[in-house]
Amino acid sequence: MADYEIFVTYKEGIFDPPGVTAERALANLGYQGVDEVKIGKYIRLSGDVDTSQVTEMCEKLLANPVIEDFRIESA
Amino acid sequence: MADYEIFVTYKEGIFDPPGVTAERALANLGYQGVDEVKIGKYIRLSGDVDTSQVTEMCEKLLANPVIEDFRIESA
Repeated sequence: MADYEIFVTYKEGIFDPPGVTAERALANLGYQGVDEVKIGKYIRLSGDVDTSQVTEMCEKLLANPVIEDFRIESA
Repeated sequence: MADYEIFVTYKEGIFDPPGVTAERALANLGYQGVDEVKIGKYIRLSGDVDTSQVTEMCEKLLANPVIEDFRIESA
């Protein structure tokens, strides 16, 4: 059994609608100091699988490699 | 300027539909070793704000404290 943490983020230059929405909402709540918000996915995966399999899972299902980057860490 | 990483996860016992969907899809793709998948949010926030303000932002907007936990790290 192994535990992994996977961080999925939009690639540089790809529009991030939830992030922009959060920026505006935070400004409306009075947090003027916020410069940028980016919202991605934080996936925790456990099982009898190795890192190369988890990489494959990210490429095939957990991330969209066209517009997203992912980073895998053993937890 | 400070950079923060925020990890938003469902509280223990709260149903995680995207996680369960990913588990099933991975099983259908042939990854029989996967035990559990949990899908949360990975937020990167930068600005002229301190940790107590970021905690407030999580409580008010970025997370739903009723069903989600959050963890903040300086990046």
